[in-house]
Amino acid sequence: MKALLLIAHGSRRTASNEEVFALAERLKSSCAHQYSILQAGFLEITTPSIATAIENCVAAGATSITVLPYFLNSGIHVIKDIPDSIEQAQIKFPTVEINMAEHIGASELMMPLLIDAANAVN
Amino acid sequence: MKALLLIAHGSRRTASNEEVFALAERLKSSCAHQYSILQAGFLEITTPSIATAIENCVAAGATSITVLPYFLNSGIHVIKDIPDSIEQAQIKFPTVEINMAEHIGASELMMPLLIDAANAVN
Repeated sequence: MKALLLIAHGSRRTASNEEVFALAERLKSSCAHQYSILQAGFLEITTPSIATAIENCVAAGATSITVLPYFLNSGIHVIKDIPDSIEQAQIKFPTVEINMAEHIGASELMMPLLIDAANAVN
Repeated sequence: MKALLLIAHGSRRTASNEEVFALAERLKSSCAHQYSILQAGFLEITTPSIATAIENCVAAGATSITVLPYFLNSGIHVIKDIPDSIEQAQIKFPTVEINMAEHIGASELMMPLLIDAANAVN
């Protein structure tokens, strides 16, 4: 059973965190045929943490988890913090396949998205 | 003459800021037919500031500037800080049309981007 785990930074502003949960809900609808389980998790400030979100996915029956960093830059969070959390979870759940996707800022689709967002103004 | 101004948060990590400049360069190539001028600017921590970036666009001959926030959440930066900077610039340059695009997290193309990024793992 496959799970998709959307990881955002986490904000002190509740509305920002709710945007992430709402995005995860929309992803859940769009990806139900691919991912039986869809969770949101946060690097810091708010919950669930990455560790807890992975545990929740495993508790729900996930045998494969794709961790998708909702981050624009390849900073320390993307390079070290999220991989470290995944490594710890992998030790805890050795039989579950846990993979990390590229952070979204690296997506080839970012360029057309930016152009579309700019053009929507004109 | 139209300008596109990509505004990122700004990071203490030089490589993150360089990613923004690199993205702006790629946008410049992709959008040359639409925007004669393409600049990157930063809300804080690094330069050019939004004010300076807008001044640079005007100095380069821009009569219309689209400010595109490279932000995922509709936090205080998107709701207040960037609009405030635009408002100040608008007072300084009353004949230049300055519009703010939606932050990229609000794009309808974010959903297919996320799905594509997740699927690239499998």
